[in-house]
Amino acid sequence: MNTCELVVTGTELLLGYVVNTHPNYIAPRLGSLGIRVTRIVTVGDDRCAMADAVSQALQRADLVIVTGGLGPTSDDVTRDVVAELLGRKLREDKKVLAKIKARFRARKVRMPKAIAVQAQVPEDALVLPNDHGTAPGLAFECGIRIAECGMTETAADVQRLLVLLPGPPRELKPMFDNYVMPLLRARGYATPAACRVFRTVGVGESWVAEMVEPLVKGRSDVELGYCARPNEVDVRLITRGSGAVALADELETRVRKRLGDIIFGGENDRLEDVVVRELIRQKRKLATAESCTGGLLASRITNVSGSSEVFTEGIVCYSNEAKMRDAGVKAKTLKAHGAVSRQVARELAEGIRQRAGTDFGVGITGIAGPTGGTAKKPVGLVFMALAGRRATEVRRAVWRYDRETFKFVVTQTALDMLRRALNTVH
Amino acid sequence: MNTCELVVTGTELLLGYVVNTHPNYIAPRLGSLGIRVTRIVTVGDDRCAMADAVSQALQRADLVIVTGGLGPTSDDVTRDVVAELLGRKLREDKKVLAKIKARFRARKVRMPKAIAVQAQVPEDALVLPNDHGTAPGLAFECGIRIAECGMTETAADVQRLLVLLPGPPRELKPMFDNYVMPLLRARGYATPAACRVFRTVGVGESWVAEMVEPLVKGRSDVELGYCARPNEVDVRLITRGSGAVALADELETRVRKRLGDIIFGGENDRLEDVVVRELIRQKRKLATAESCTGGLLASRITNVSGSSEVFTEGIVCYSNEAKMRDAGVKAKTLKAHGAVSRQVARELAEGIRQRAGTDFGVGITGIAGPTGGTAKKPVGLVFMALAGRRATEVRRAVWRYDRETFKFVVTQTALDMLRRALNTVH
Repeated sequence: MNTCELVVTGTELLLGYVVNTHPNYIAPRLGSLGIRVTRIVTVGDDRCAMADAVSQALQRADLVIVTGGLGPTSDDVTRDVVAELLGRKLREDKKVLAKIKARFRARKVRMPKAIAVQAQVPEDALVLPNDHGTAPGLAFECGIRIAECGMTETAADVQRLLVLLPGPPRELKPMFDNYVMPLLRARGYATPAACRVFRTVGVGESWVAEMVEPLVKGRSDVELGYCARPNEVDVRLITRGSGAVALADELETRVRKRLGDIIFGGENDRLEDVVVRELIRQKRKLATAESCTGGLLASRITNVSGSSEVFTEGIVCYSNEAKMRDAGVKAKTLKAHGAVSRQVARELAEGIRQRAGTDFGVGITGIAGPTGGTAKKPVGLVFMALAGRRATEVRRAVWRYDRETFKFVVTQTALDMLRRALNTVH
Repeated sequence: MNTCELVVTGTELLLGYVVNTHPNYIAPRLGSLGIRVTRIVTVGDDRCAMADAVSQALQRADLVIVTGGLGPTSDDVTRDVVAELLGRKLREDKKVLAKIKARFRARKVRMPKAIAVQAQVPEDALVLPNDHGTAPGLAFECGIRIAECGMTETAADVQRLLVLLPGPPRELKPMFDNYVMPLLRARGYATPAACRVFRTVGVGESWVAEMVEPLVKGRSDVELGYCARPNEVDVRLITRGSGAVALADELETRVRKRLGDIIFGGENDRLEDVVVRELIRQKRKLATAESCTGGLLASRITNVSGSSEVFTEGIVCYSNEAKMRDAGVKAKTLKAHGAVSRQVARELAEGIRQRAGTDFGVGITGIAGPTGGTAKKPVGLVFMALAGRRATEVRRAVWRYDRETFKFVVTQTALDMLRRALNTVH
């Protein structure tokens, strides 16, 4: 399997003002070709740091992609640094220059002199056209002498592919898809691999790992990875080799059997997507009455396009008056059990379901904190109720998180109750 | 000025499935201490790559921060790798173990055996408490022999600070603020620098830059940075040198005068924090009636601790029935002008204000998209209304964004209307 290192350049990334999203575009696409990203190095617009990062990357990886620094300003030094590093002279490429000039003519804008530097191309470089800007990308095949190190006694000469891409995403993305991907296929850098993602809800990372690890134990052609968020764990399974797809299919069956219904979806599914999709499919409607989650449940549901078909209304009833007026909670229930109670959660769910005339009603009441707790009802106590046609289910939990995580975990559990109900009540 | 390198670990980052936002939290905070991030290296959960990245970073930078890989699963190897690299034995720390056990007891959950590995602490390491999870952070002061290289003829011994932090942002962020920042100050890593952050709403990045840049032109002891999100631009002003604080104070006055009331707060203020704080101070109450923002406004307000004092209720009225029943919108208004109209926004705001008996009512109606638009009412059209004691203000806008960004920008504008009303109507 071929490896790739990314060298991402830009002082604004080191200052932390801009989020580096290039890897999130490039890596999955390389992954689909069986090319593994093994390191990402971010450096500033600094000649020494960049030369050091690129030459080290060429020592280790088959493919090196450098992003940024191809523009016309004084801090754009990538082209120079790489030409010097590889010992190649820069020459003005007449075709590239003509294309840049044409771009300015078409816009009826005078071309600043500095722009012409973008037509400088190192000798023997392949030009990758930029269909959305002036700076072309560049690709080089180069022989590199691997330095001696502790592991290998002798130096060796190897072939590497070095690709330079412009930094702006709207220029980089189409260039990557239209020119870099075909180049990698044409030059034989692609190898077979397959990937499966399972998103789970309601259990912890170590529990999921304990269940799944034995299925792939001792296999060198399979890799497992986990990504854990509160109440949510993603399992990522990657297989390699000529039988990668068949092996992934086989393992997928085993993982699904093992993890069962804690799996709620795949790579691009959020829990709210799965729930709204299933409500639409079953033509069922939903209304919500939230206290401590303060509208987050409604907001997550309405993040899904098409939710207006199934979500009729939500109320956020922080005050007791609103609980009574909008969801029909009884005054005597509030008095007897308090606002944060099993009974009030039930009345919220049943009340909003009845008022809105929907198939499902969700009621949530709890103490998000950091203040408001008592000995009997501590901060983090929450009741989540789901009212359906036949019955109402109420869950109790105590979660000590910061306010926003608390709200997320509570709505996550409410959505999961709804998902399970939709899976069983047909 | 001290330098820092970040080593961010996690195979999910190399696969491109997770966006690496740690630098965006850490770098600006280090900048405020006069510490500059010079390189960010991302490696997978791989012992060799991690050891290589950490030892190289220690060669170059005064401070090295490693994030991730402190969890309990087999791919969490940071603790081991660093202990081996520095030649320090791992020992079970009884205090840390007790704290982990207490955490599980409080939740009445069985502690998986693997979790105990998080109590393994390398000798002479400083434990950084984790107030939001089980894995503590670790800090080491260590003497490093700088390797000979082309530039320096002889090897030298230097002191470095190495800090290991857990990967989950909700654990890393408070640990960084509460334990790493004080540690850096206490150990003398901070150099004289002052930082001021101005958060603005409602204007674009180039407009803000044009206003502010002339104030610092030609000064080498001042650095300006911008961070732009839809409808929000942060301006970061950093001064250096012995007179850093006085200079920052002077420039702050000038920036505030220049930007005026588009500044809504400082570093740690979200717009919802500022609005809730001011509602509390003025003892005024608020209720909301949202259609296209689907509860996001209520959710943002209730993210603020203490909001229950001033926010009585919100309704999310996707259906026309809910608009009429819960907010008192008139059937004839819906019929005459349609649900997405200036008149319905006004009736939502006035209706919810009256029903809830609050000082302010917010009404929002629009077309979030991607579908549902017409020639006269395109996707992105939205009306935002604020009803107060004396008058109701309605704003119209057309914003073409993805669904979630659209919701954010609309709620941002509604919050800003409220902020301006609170600043003027006393």
